[in-house]
Amino acid sequence: MPTHKLRIVPLGGLAEIGKNMMALEYGNDIVVIDAGLMFPSEEMLGVDLLIPDISYLLARRKNLRGIVITHGHEDHIGALPYVLSRIAPPVYATRFTRELIMVELKQRGVKTSAKLNLVSPGSRITLGKFTIEFFSVCHSIPDSVGLVIHTPVGIVVHSGDFKIDHTPALSEATNFNQLALLGAKGVLLLLSDSTYAELPGYTPSEQVVRDTLDRIVSEAKGRVIVTTFASLVSRMQQVFDVAVKHGRRVFIVGRSMKEIASMALKTGYLTAPPGIICRLDELKTLPHNRVIVLSTGSQGEPTSALVRMANRDPSSRIQIIPGDTVVISATPIPGNEALVSKTTDSLFHQGANVIYDKVAQVHVHGHGSQEELKLLLSLVKPKFFVPIHGEYRHLSLHASLASSVGIPEDNIFVLDNGDILELGQDSGKVVGRTRVGVIYVSGMITGELNAGVLRDRKLLSRDGVVVVTVAVDAGNGRLAERPRIVTRGFIDTGEEQKLIEKGRDVVLAALDHDKRRLSEPSFVDARVKDSLSKFFYEQIHRRPVIIPVVVEVSAKNSEVSTR
Amino acid sequence: MPTHKLRIVPLGGLAEIGKNMMALEYGNDIVVIDAGLMFPSEEMLGVDLLIPDISYLLARRKNLRGIVITHGHEDHIGALPYVLSRIAPPVYATRFTRELIMVELKQRGVKTSAKLNLVSPGSRITLGKFTIEFFSVCHSIPDSVGLVIHTPVGIVVHSGDFKIDHTPALSEATNFNQLALLGAKGVLLLLSDSTYAELPGYTPSEQVVRDTLDRIVSEAKGRVIVTTFASLVSRMQQVFDVAVKHGRRVFIVGRSMKEIASMALKTGYLTAPPGIICRLDELKTLPHNRVIVLSTGSQGEPTSALVRMANRDPSSRIQIIPGDTVVISATPIPGNEALVSKTTDSLFHQGANVIYDKVAQVHVHGHGSQEELKLLLSLVKPKFFVPIHGEYRHLSLHASLASSVGIPEDNIFVLDNGDILELGQDSGKVVGRTRVGVIYVSGMITGELNAGVLRDRKLLSRDGVVVVTVAVDAGNGRLAERPRIVTRGFIDTGEEQKLIEKGRDVVLAALDHDKRRLSEPSFVDARVKDSLSKFFYEQIHRRPVIIPVVVEVSAKNSEVSTR
Repeated sequence: MPTHKLRIVPLGGLAEIGKNMMALEYGNDIVVIDAGLMFPSEEMLGVDLLIPDISYLLARRKNLRGIVITHGHEDHIGALPYVLSRIAPPVYATRFTRELIMVELKQRGVKTSAKLNLVSPGSRITLGKFTIEFFSVCHSIPDSVGLVIHTPVGIVVHSGDFKIDHTPALSEATNFNQLALLGAKGVLLLLSDSTYAELPGYTPSEQVVRDTLDRIVSEAKGRVIVTTFASLVSRMQQVFDVAVKHGRRVFIVGRSMKEIASMALKTGYLTAPPGIICRLDELKTLPHNRVIVLSTGSQGEPTSALVRMANRDPSSRIQIIPGDTVVISATPIPGNEALVSKTTDSLFHQGANVIYDKVAQVHVHGHGSQEELKLLLSLVKPKFFVPIHGEYRHLSLHASLASSVGIPEDNIFVLDNGDILELGQDSGKVVGRTRVGVIYVSGMITGELNAGVLRDRKLLSRDGVVVVTVAVDAGNGRLAERPRIVTRGFIDTGEEQKLIEKGRDVVLAALDHDKRRLSEPSFVDARVKDSLSKFFYEQIHRRPVIIPVVVEVSAKNSEVSTR
Repeated sequence: MPTHKLRIVPLGGLAEIGKNMMALEYGNDIVVIDAGLMFPSEEMLGVDLLIPDISYLLARRKNLRGIVITHGHEDHIGALPYVLSRIAPPVYATRFTRELIMVELKQRGVKTSAKLNLVSPGSRITLGKFTIEFFSVCHSIPDSVGLVIHTPVGIVVHSGDFKIDHTPALSEATNFNQLALLGAKGVLLLLSDSTYAELPGYTPSEQVVRDTLDRIVSEAKGRVIVTTFASLVSRMQQVFDVAVKHGRRVFIVGRSMKEIASMALKTGYLTAPPGIICRLDELKTLPHNRVIVLSTGSQGEPTSALVRMANRDPSSRIQIIPGDTVVISATPIPGNEALVSKTTDSLFHQGANVIYDKVAQVHVHGHGSQEELKLLLSLVKPKFFVPIHGEYRHLSLHASLASSVGIPEDNIFVLDNGDILELGQDSGKVVGRTRVGVIYVSGMITGELNAGVLRDRKLLSRDGVVVVTVAVDAGNGRLAERPRIVTRGFIDTGEEQKLIEKGRDVVLAALDHDKRRLSEPSFVDARVKDSLSKFFYEQIHRRPVIIPVVVEVSAKNSEVSTR
């Protein structure tokens, strides 16, 4: 009989896609799974990225036995530079994942004493009372794993991010046998990826993309330019395979694509016959129908190789020519839709034929759809179920799926980040909540999100700022000169002049109005703000941020000058 | 033989969805089709909406014979208040459309001498050398029409926004017979809706939604809350029909939904048996399974009825209770995805079962897919083809469809806004371009987009503003006091204090450095900006907008005080 309950504490990754981090705790042992970052939504003005709040771990740092990483996407490893600069537990990751973590740490300039340990599918590690086995899962990045975690309370299965693909591009099929055996033995808890719990049916195989690419390349009379996620090595492999088949050579453009291709070739995750990759000087001598270009820019990132082609950026090494076929082998990540559409439009405008997800199946995603999620549930047959990796609607729908395959509703927990779930062998309960603020990173500032600062940025973004300088005569407490106004981001200069002049009169009138001495700063401040705010709203229905600057000058000085 | 060529001048609606406006010109006669607005993309900070530039029309106002409107969506009528406040040609619209135009003019407080003339499918008007016949098309708003325009050069067919639905909810099937007859007779030019040219196959019938709604309502044990576009009267009709069938009563919530329902009932576009609509006091006495709520909020609009329910706004007349089924019978308009997702998550979080486009077919859109577009092309058999209503990729794909049904590529014109296409009976050519700026409306300001203002707003939105007040002693040209700093939207107050203090030292050092007199404003200005900008970037990697305010004060005044 276990002496403790098993605690599951999601620190990220629930109800906020892409900031995945979870603590598993038994007695004095804590294991953390993943440490991801999240990119801010539009209203988080000036925020670069978001990371999980690790207060829970900091308060229990002596119990922390290690951080186990399921795969190398940013939403699973991106917070490591921040976490490892504060605590340094050992980290466990597969080879490809570990390479990406090292790049990440280097890019952020983080030096850590934490050891980055190598694990592989089938290997097993012991961290305190936890013994963890790794199993292969198929996902959109090589070397992805799920976890079988043996705990004193029972076995926990963590799916990682996964899909089921019987004909994947790389040898990365999800390992079912082990899961089926575990299911027969008895699993306490399944934690499973909910990202695509909305989608009925099965996620198509990578084979489908291979067929589409093959058809496109065989029909293309000119160059074919393919863009995809740099970490989607299996897609890169497909492009190489198709190139070989059709006697084309591959030119790679874009920093991240080149780096990952090179790393993947070196480590054997990507295989390409010698001479298939061509250099720029070779590219220039090849006939158009002997070329495939593999490019970054699938999300319409403004400085990416594809966007520079789309914009006819003169510094781009490749310029679009009519007859080019551009394949966008990706879907826009939520928030990037407009950028991708704009890029597509520009490519068409230059005479390229653009083939993208809406017009042909040039992409399949890396997460299981409803039938796959049910299959995992049915194989593992867990007593308890916690949907992870998704926004609230995905978790809710995944919970319904679990219920539909026979898991009692009382044994399904749709958690919020920070909920502390305690599981015994027969029952589970949310026993409390830990602090989980949103930790934002802006430049070199890391901290909580200040609502006032964000509100001010929002106001500034709409109508700009108006700085009003009021010089008060120290002697008689009256205005020493006409108020001055400077604006930024307000309105067009042409129209602005007249309005500004009138605004100065308005401030003048407001301050001279009741012949009161202007020695009370708060009075002057409020008067300036109120009068000008009202004036601008009446005149043009806009509300800029108004900043009064009040200066006292000597009465003797007749030459006050304010700009 | 015609003495002139026919001119087609798109002023909006190409390469920018939803700002539809086009001029047709023959000799001294101009007819305009539609006058729509467009909502700004995210980077257009502080812009409320965009309207077409009508310089082309203003320069030819004496030739303008009328504005013909195809249907009542904002992207086809929304610019009328602005256009009609500058020019007042007669406007022609069907009844439902005319009602909406009147609402629009009233809301914007526009009084115009322009006459709003009523037309109906089958009717015919003559405007100068143009004779225009209206034909019914099926679209997502009642009373939509396409146009057959007889010109001296030949017949022009304008599709309006359309889909083909053989089993629509209202009697609004697209009228093919007339088009087929025209096709046999010979059509010079087809202008056709490209909005869904990306989608293969056919757009499903409204019948599909009826079946889904019927199933959802019959299975729901509690209340059913349906949200859709207020102008989608056919969907409203379906909700009423399903309510009647299942013995439920309908409660309508949300201003625009109530207004349009009331108008549609009055004008006969919506039919409901007496007593089906219930009042709030009745709603409270009805069992949950006898209720359907019809609500605004399908786009996650922050102040809409559904969003107020989702947020448990205490002023909301309806609060979500577990067991509620919420049907989002719409798809997010590009740009609204995040708002809709957030609303869905909040509704799930409160225990509602939310059914939306990804999980069930609760919406079909109002535009034809590829096979419908081909059908129209095949029926009309135009000599020339111009795809309209869409972004560049939609126009390009629609051009490919036209080519695939046999229209010669030389006779297909993918235009940009402002292109002037001239058509003779046998050939066409883009002969020039007219001015088409982006006209933006912000509050009561209407004008061109100033790139500098937008750039400043962008900068302000990221890192806020820092106002630095420097008081210079008029006597000796030296600093009269330590520089003062005020910020808005910069960083968190806690961390800010130390940084601001250091920043004041930095400015002090920069200005005192070379013992130069501080009487040159541009010198002081540049010094403050450069030193502080560099300092903040080094310290925290942020670049706020820095506004220096330089004031000269008298040397005799020892009590300078700046806030």
